Amino acid sequence: MLRIGVLGCGRIGRMHAANIAAHPRTTLAGVYDVNRAAADDVAKALGVPALDSAEAMFASGIDAVLIATATDTHVAYIEQAIEAGKAVLCEKPIDLDLGRVNRCAANVRGTKLPIMIGFVRRFDPGHRAVRAAIQNGDIGELHQVIVTSRDPGMAPAAYIEVSGGIFRDMTIHDFDLARFMLGEEPVEVFATGARLVDPELMERTGDWDTVTVVLKTASGKQAIINNSRRAVYGYDQRVEAFGSAGMAISENRRAHGARIYGEGFTDKAEPYLHFFIERYQEAFNAEIDAFVDAVERGEAPAVGFEDGRLALVLAEAAMKSIAERRVVATSEIG
Amino acid sequence: MLRIGVLGCGRIGRMHAANIAAHPRTTLAGVYDVNRAAADDVAKALGVPALDSAEAMFASGIDAVLIATATDTHVAYIEQAIEAGKAVLCEKPIDLDLGRVNRCAANVRGTKLPIMIGFVRRFDPGHRAVRAAIQNGDIGELHQVIVTSRDPGMAPAAYIEVSGGIFRDMTIHDFDLARFMLGEEPVEVFATGARLVDPELMERTGDWDTVTVVLKTASGKQAIINNSRRAVYGYDQRVEAFGSAGMAISENRRAHGARIYGEGFTDKAEPYLHFFIERYQEAFNAEIDAFVDAVERGEAPAVGFEDGRLALVLAEAAMKSIAERRVVATSEIG
Amino acid sequence: MLRIGVLGCGRIGRMHAANIAAHPRTTLAGVYDVNRAAADDVAKALGVPALDSAEAMFASGIDAVLIATATDTHVAYIEQAIEAGKAVLCEKPIDLDLGRVNRCAANVRGTKLPIMIGFVRRFDPGHRAVRAAIQNGDIGELHQVIVTSRDPGMAPAAYIEVSGGIFRDMTIHDFDLARFMLGEEPVEVFATGARLVDPELMERTGDWDTVTVVLKTASGKQAIINNSRRAVYGYDQRVEAFGSAGMAISENRRAHGARIYGEGFTDKAEPYLHFFIERYQEAFNAEIDAFVDAVERGEAPAVGFEDGRLALVLAEAAMKSIAERRVVATSEIG
Amino acid sequence: MLRIGVLGCGRIGRMHAANIAAHPRTTLAGVYDVNRAAADDVAKALGVPALDSAEAMFASGIDAVLIATATDTHVAYIEQAIEAGKAVLCEKPIDLDLGRVNRCAANVRGTKLPIMIGFVRRFDPGHRAVRAAIQNGDIGELHQVIVTSRDPGMAPAAYIEVSGGIFRDMTIHDFDLARFMLGEEPVEVFATGARLVDPELMERTGDWDTVTVVLKTASGKQAIINNSRRAVYGYDQRVEAFGSAGMAISENRRAHGARIYGEGFTDKAEPYLHFFIERYQEAFNAEIDAFVDAVERGEAPAVGFEDGRLALVLAEAAMKSIAERRVVATSEIG
Repeated sequence: MLRIGVLGCGRIGRMHAANIAAHPRTTLAGVYDVNRAAADDVAKALGVPALDSAEAMFASGIDAVLIATATDTHVAYIEQAIEAGKAVLCEKPIDLDLGRVNRCAANVRGTKLPIMIGFVRRFDPGHRAVRAAIQNGDIGELHQVIVTSRDPGMAPAAYIEVSGGIFRDMTIHDFDLARFMLGEEPVEVFATGARLVDPELMERTGDWDTVTVVLKTASGKQAIINNSRRAVYGYDQRVEAFGSAGMAISENRRAHGARIYGEGFTDKAEPYLHFFIERYQEAFNAEIDAFVDAVERGEAPAVGFEDGRLALVLAEAAMKSIAERRVVATSEIG
Repeated sequence: MLRIGVLGCGRIGRMHAANIAAHPRTTLAGVYDVNRAAADDVAKALGVPALDSAEAMFASGIDAVLIATATDTHVAYIEQAIEAGKAVLCEKPIDLDLGRVNRCAANVRGTKLPIMIGFVRRFDPGHRAVRAAIQNGDIGELHQVIVTSRDPGMAPAAYIEVSGGIFRDMTIHDFDLARFMLGEEPVEVFATGARLVDPELMERTGDWDTVTVVLKTASGKQAIINNSRRAVYGYDQRVEAFGSAGMAISENRRAHGARIYGEGFTDKAEPYLHFFIERYQEAFNAEIDAFVDAVERGEAPAVGFEDGRLALVLAEAAMKSIAERRVVATSEIG
Repeated sequence: MLRIGVLGCGRIGRMHAANIAAHPRTTLAGVYDVNRAAADDVAKALGVPALDSAEAMFASGIDAVLIATATDTHVAYIEQAIEAGKAVLCEKPIDLDLGRVNRCAANVRGTKLPIMIGFVRRFDPGHRAVRAAIQNGDIGELHQVIVTSRDPGMAPAAYIEVSGGIFRDMTIHDFDLARFMLGEEPVEVFATGARLVDPELMERTGDWDTVTVVLKTASGKQAIINNSRRAVYGYDQRVEAFGSAGMAISENRRAHGARIYGEGFTDKAEPYLHFFIERYQEAFNAEIDAFVDAVERGEAPAVGFEDGRLALVLAEAAMKSIAERRVVATSEIG
Repeated sequence: MLRIGVLGCGRIGRMHAANIAAHPRTTLAGVYDVNRAAADDVAKALGVPALDSAEAMFASGIDAVLIATATDTHVAYIEQAIEAGKAVLCEKPIDLDLGRVNRCAANVRGTKLPIMIGFVRRFDPGHRAVRAAIQNGDIGELHQVIVTSRDPGMAPAAYIEVSGGIFRDMTIHDFDLARFMLGEEPVEVFATGARLVDPELMERTGDWDTVTVVLKTASGKQAIINNSRRAVYGYDQRVEAFGSAGMAISENRRAHGARIYGEGFTDKAEPYLHFFIERYQEAFNAEIDAFVDAVERGEAPAVGFEDGRLALVLAEAAMKSIAERRVVATSEIG
């Protein structure tokens, strides 16, 4: 049983803590949050101690730490964890500042400890089946990837204001998923977008709520990402991989299979699983499994620090592309 | 080009006349209806003569006749056609009276002229694909067949009153389809039903509007038929064949593939193709093709007189079963 | 937290024990099995005591007992539990012998303690959505119900030999589901079947592996059940409810939404969730929730002893129907 | 009955001729092709005269002409037809040279005769249902459109060589469909692509076989087009419209609704309708209907010359974008 401490008791930290507590291969050793009440609440619910500080956490007898704190604290906690000899599973993005990420990369270079980044979608069974179809050759040579990712509703303004913008906050998952599917690094990025869901908030924060991104690899493979901050019919999460010998699609999922037929319509289904905690439930558990594997086997994690960094490079390229209305080469970015 | 005359210019006769006129392998030679105005109307629309009598039709230079008149005239027309040396394509049912059908069978025995019965569903591409899956061994040994057939709305009272009852009017198609799929003769029939759509009309006519029939063959294969005279979501036409190595289903069909997603629902589709003329459009054309094949090659038609008779035997068995609340052996029926 | 002891540590008892241990509203107090090693194994995995006897379990400070032992021990354990003042959640069927069930009913009559029967399918979210559509009037007056239930593979011969036959072992779930959907008691039962999956085993045990059952209520509503002991494409679990204003269907479910397209085919999906532990995972948890509700509120459980008894009445009627090749009135059965 | 002459008896001209001959509101007056044998062949099959020249066609008593000749003859025939007082239905593209199209526009300016361009996809019932959902407000304000269009196989090299390249030959349909859905003119075009299906042929012709195009309107609406010259699973034709209140999708279509289930898979369907003649059969007929409407009512056609020109502007912008690896404003193009 891997003993894991959780830093950060917000929505996602709380979910991870519960998953770790229930996981057959892990023990939740304790939790910490800068907001003591939040930590106490989780600690009580799961029957584990709430620690007084991140330092206390690192000093405790844990094997690994899951970092789910505010984004701007990730880098420092990663470095402290590595120094303390703890394996790391860190939520995305590593940081909003690519320079800081690069410096962190330099600081932790050489460690044998796994540093895994929480790109949970790689562990979704449907998305994995698409990846497997690519790798098994079931669809031949890959030509195009389409990632559709739409949130069920706009995040609160307070969240948007510190999110770093849609590309680093939301699309970053899709950048990683595109890289996962492509199996090659994108060399060109084109992004465009608009302020259609909440124009006032987007205008004020300089952000976009409806974006399209096209990535291209050196061999010509194309990945198309489309994002919206609000899909009223639910959390829309699809991946399509098209190749020389076929296509593989990971469709949306619902809580059950009921369909209604009535006067003037047929086959009406309920909304999609809402929201990421429900939609990616198996994925979050499989992510922990993969993390435990990496720690126990001393292997590179399934999603490493460099994956986190490269997704951020794509996000920066997209930001530059949309700002300068031009195609951006990833080589232009750090 | 096979020269075909059409007897009967009601809804289905009119459709057949138009199909024959447009078919690449047939010519519409003329039409006849006891209602002269109806015949004139079709004749004018399709640019063919309206004949004065069925006798005139048989005496004209036609190769074949399509019989789409009132059910109680079918037998006489079949016999006249055969005597006149014309091939026959006759709408279902042959007659409501099995005794009359048996006598007709005796009268036409020995003819080399094709007598084909219009069980159009055998020619539906989806249903045929299910049959092919059975015959190709794709689903192994066949175990169970489920035929779902629900009309989009109750027929007019005047129609119901002379229809011969649901089993001989509507289920007769499903009896034939079950036989087509089973590839063996049912030996036992169980039928049950209720008066739920239009209880008053059903009570008055002694008919049923919501029925379930179970057929069993000597080897134990089972076919389940469920019928309703009214499905508000449209014309529901499905076939499921289940076997030792898999299952084949012929699903319902719509006019196009649009789906709508909104607040609280996903994947809503339009109603099914309405009604048999639209739903079985390809099938009606393929039926004519099969008829032309039989005539030109001098072969037994794909659906022969005996098929029409055996479907009627099942209908009679079902009527007996529902009346006597017991399982009826087909051997008990003529 | 309701303290529950589990009697029986076979496949299903083991699953229940784990569910109870993980459930937010229950505590697993201990386990017992006539096979000590099986009990020890579960006890160790879940960190609870393995008790020496059922008596010891009833004497311990539990609030309730879950009975998942061999069918022929259910009745005695129910009676002991009630005498000991423990609420009961008992796996289906109550017993293979309806007389014994009736005597048990008499013995426990008057208890205020909930006795719930484990007809888990009532708690499946898809099936519940169909029921809700019926109750909300979304599909108008109910006319027909079709329950398709096919196991992914024949159970071991040793299991079949003591199962009590397909109607009491497998169809019993469908009888309950049909009653749940119909909202009225069936008054007539017709069953037919064959030995197509494993003829030798079926012949030897006098059992059937491929059956069709038709139930009819006094008002004419019809329920059709079709069962097979082996569907090679997976565990096939569907419910269709057809009414005067529409239809509701609970479709099969898969582990994820991937689809493959290749040369000569489109839309190929993976097999269904395999087997009942995966397919009805949420349902098993919701069943525990409903049980806790009943105990805490002192209310009649969602599925009571009489529901268990009436499903068995339908099973007996089906057995009589298939044996005597006739329609059986439920009033003929105890 | 509108009397229509057909110029061009290649695959698509032949299809149009047959459709016109069978259409209830049109008469096929005659056909012409530079290849006399091709014209004779169609003329014989449909029982109409083969004319000696386009001039003879214009001089005959036709009301309208359908132009399905080689692309570089379209402009001259349009001008001759207008001069001769004939309404025009012209296949896409109008010409490969935008300058020529602009001059033709000037030459025919002021005519009251309908000049309709054959963007058939606008008439597809599924695509139309998506458009209707947009216009009815069913999906709120439109935000994103995704058009997927993949041919079932690479066209012959001889065809590709004179096609004008993928954007003017194939994507041109999608440009029109995007404009049809967007209801606003795109102001920015980004295109990227690769040579993945037939690299040698593409290299030689300077063409692309796998492309992605992103269009943006002034209000920020985005349209994504993805094309491939070869999808082994069939002709892939989908449209997705996403808006503030929902989504509408036009799914692919198959010849029938059969599904196969077997060991290790479920829900396998047959390939899509192959090819445009089958897939857009209703659309081709509805196109003729719309043309007859325009002529009879003296109204502007549903798809006018300017629509043909604007699709070509988008094609040119895409060509410039891919060549110069930058975003191109449509205002940069003629």
